[in-house]
Amino acid sequence: MKEIYLDNAATTPLDPEVLEVMLPWLKGGYGNASSVHTLGRQAKVRIEDVRDIFADFIGARSSEIYFTSGGTEADNFAVKGITFAKLGSGMLTSGARPHIISSAIEHSAIIDTLEYLKLRFAVDVTYLKSDRFGKIDPKDAEKAIRPETILITIMHSNNELGVINDTLPFARIAHNHNIPFFTDAVQSLGKVTLDVKQMECDAASFSGHKIYGPKGIGALFLKKDTLIDKFMHGGKQERDRRGGTENTAAIAGFGKAIELLKSRMKSDIEQYSKLRAQFVKAIGETFGSNVIFNSPGCGSGSGDVPYLPNIVSMSFNPESVKTDADTLLIKLDMKKIAVSSGSACTSGSVQPSHVLKAIGYDDRSARSSLRVSFGRGNTAADIDTLVETLKDIIS
Amino acid sequence: MKEIYLDNAATTPLDPEVLEVMLPWLKGGYGNASSVHTLGRQAKVRIEDVRDIFADFIGARSSEIYFTSGGTEADNFAVKGITFAKLGSGMLTSGARPHIISSAIEHSAIIDTLEYLKLRFAVDVTYLKSDRFGKIDPKDAEKAIRPETILITIMHSNNELGVINDTLPFARIAHNHNIPFFTDAVQSLGKVTLDVKQMECDAASFSGHKIYGPKGIGALFLKKDTLIDKFMHGGKQERDRRGGTENTAAIAGFGKAIELLKSRMKSDIEQYSKLRAQFVKAIGETFGSNVIFNSPGCGSGSGDVPYLPNIVSMSFNPESVKTDADTLLIKLDMKKIAVSSGSACTSGSVQPSHVLKAIGYDDRSARSSLRVSFGRGNTAADIDTLVETLKDIIS
Repeated sequence: MKEIYLDNAATTPLDPEVLEVMLPWLKGGYGNASSVHTLGRQAKVRIEDVRDIFADFIGARSSEIYFTSGGTEADNFAVKGITFAKLGSGMLTSGARPHIISSAIEHSAIIDTLEYLKLRFAVDVTYLKSDRFGKIDPKDAEKAIRPETILITIMHSNNELGVINDTLPFARIAHNHNIPFFTDAVQSLGKVTLDVKQMECDAASFSGHKIYGPKGIGALFLKKDTLIDKFMHGGKQERDRRGGTENTAAIAGFGKAIELLKSRMKSDIEQYSKLRAQFVKAIGETFGSNVIFNSPGCGSGSGDVPYLPNIVSMSFNPESVKTDADTLLIKLDMKKIAVSSGSACTSGSVQPSHVLKAIGYDDRSARSSLRVSFGRGNTAADIDTLVETLKDIIS
Repeated sequence: MKEIYLDNAATTPLDPEVLEVMLPWLKGGYGNASSVHTLGRQAKVRIEDVRDIFADFIGARSSEIYFTSGGTEADNFAVKGITFAKLGSGMLTSGARPHIISSAIEHSAIIDTLEYLKLRFAVDVTYLKSDRFGKIDPKDAEKAIRPETILITIMHSNNELGVINDTLPFARIAHNHNIPFFTDAVQSLGKVTLDVKQMECDAASFSGHKIYGPKGIGALFLKKDTLIDKFMHGGKQERDRRGGTENTAAIAGFGKAIELLKSRMKSDIEQYSKLRAQFVKAIGETFGSNVIFNSPGCGSGSGDVPYLPNIVSMSFNPESVKTDADTLLIKLDMKKIAVSSGSACTSGSVQPSHVLKAIGYDDRSARSSLRVSFGRGNTAADIDTLVETLKDIIS
């Protein structure tokens, strides 16, 4: 029986072409990119090439791209780096309590970081609320600003719901008050056109393994002259902004994943959108009012709220469907179908998804939610199988 | 002409057997290890297996091992994590200035971190001096202790000199004063037997790419009940101590590199030691008093100071040898021989090695120093070629 992988928002398969590009760096090209000799310089040249490729893809300059070990590191780098740089500029001693504006639906890499800054560094955080689809109102950000606000950070698209928040209004509000704006764009990369210049953001985070690239590689866009502290202290790598031996193979793979996006992102989006529409229609027809869609763009009155083409989150009515999501997951898995109940990054937690709670669910309903995320490997037949299997399990 | 790679302290080639073990995780086994489905659980199982393998290798419990993106992250995690946890325990508000004891010959991942803590968080740091071979006197650590000392961190072996500092006396002194002890053991792994229990350390850092494993993977040993803050905030991965999607392929590769060490570390050490002795003898015979060895164990009166079997650092007398190290490196590179002038992690810097300055060199002498580091791929003929080539270049 064929494996049906519908958890592409958690991670994607490595594209075989990406692996091909990585292999030379896992074999002969092992030099330390900081070494002066040929083996080192070969690695360095490849890394700088990828920096150019990626910068070009998101409308940045090469000198504004910093490679990290992943999206989580890029998020930590941005949030802690900007906060600590501000603390160091004198706010800590003045007695004022630095303040950050974010949202309740951020990825755990942001929320966990913010909660830590609250706990240890007396930072105050305002988590903006969203509507039931995850849409956040820029006016709320404007209202939350204080003289002590040092950062506004709103994710570009949500990893559980797929909702896209146009970050431009947030960036403009921030800049009107001389506050830097950072966006976690990990889930958006490859699914929507991103141009950091048009987005007017000061920083944005990205990850390789969500775009058919390798795990262990990410990037931070940092607009020139953004005041930020180093997060990973060490050697002078990444123009002295991120220490640690460069992961050449992973960077080379990331570059190839970006090149593949350049040529096929349009067809990817068409493919995902088609699968998504098919899935939403079939689920609606099969389960009717026993299912509520949490994602925008599923005909549940989300209006013109934009959304990613590859994610559908939905909740079964716990009154009529007695099987909770964890049981569903396991039963689907026995049929070789992989989906998730929320973010993989929070699945170790006993708590139900903070995102589903933020859009208004109680614990019980949050526990009856499924996330289905489409990828390049999926076909219309996969969707048919998933819907049929869900029907079998639930009925 | 064969490439002669003698920069194994900067990074090592990936062992082909390690790559073999990684490949399945770069192909079919792409699941997110935090996912509940089979693909996720397969990755999780592999990761936990490697945790057991590594814990066993260094005498730790599996629950004391945390995977990181490399040695630099493990160093940041330990030093910042322990410091911030202590700050949070009330020392910051009491007005006392927290104090850390370290050494002047630490890797830049430690020094850069400590300098940052000084700059931003009013931490005071004492850098213990070493003798001319890099040996640090535990009595100096004892003398430096203050009531505010929150951490003692001394590297296990130095990446430029190869000197080993027995860390046990430092750990005991620290513990006598209820201070945690951390050691950067990145260069020691695979070249000397390490048992964290016998070393009595509270934390120790390790890296994959120095032991024929992949880049982008490291580990932190953290003794049970060590008070430490998370460094990489995010999901609940690594028992909620290190967020970010697990890099399964790199972890699997690290595990294989450790298994290879289990079977061949003894013969590795024999091979390195033989090459080192041959090299030291030939250099001495060829250059006589025009060369000074910076590493212990080269017949320059270092007595019983222990040292790694694979590193030789030496300085040419700038009065008699007019070629500086950077020129030497380039000329050797043109002959397809890769060595280094110091640490790769500091080679982007315009400053001469802080380690060589710490053992007493002025800038000029520090700039005439070479580091040669042996690996599994080297033969006696490589050493002959290197010495002959050096002779040709210099004479």
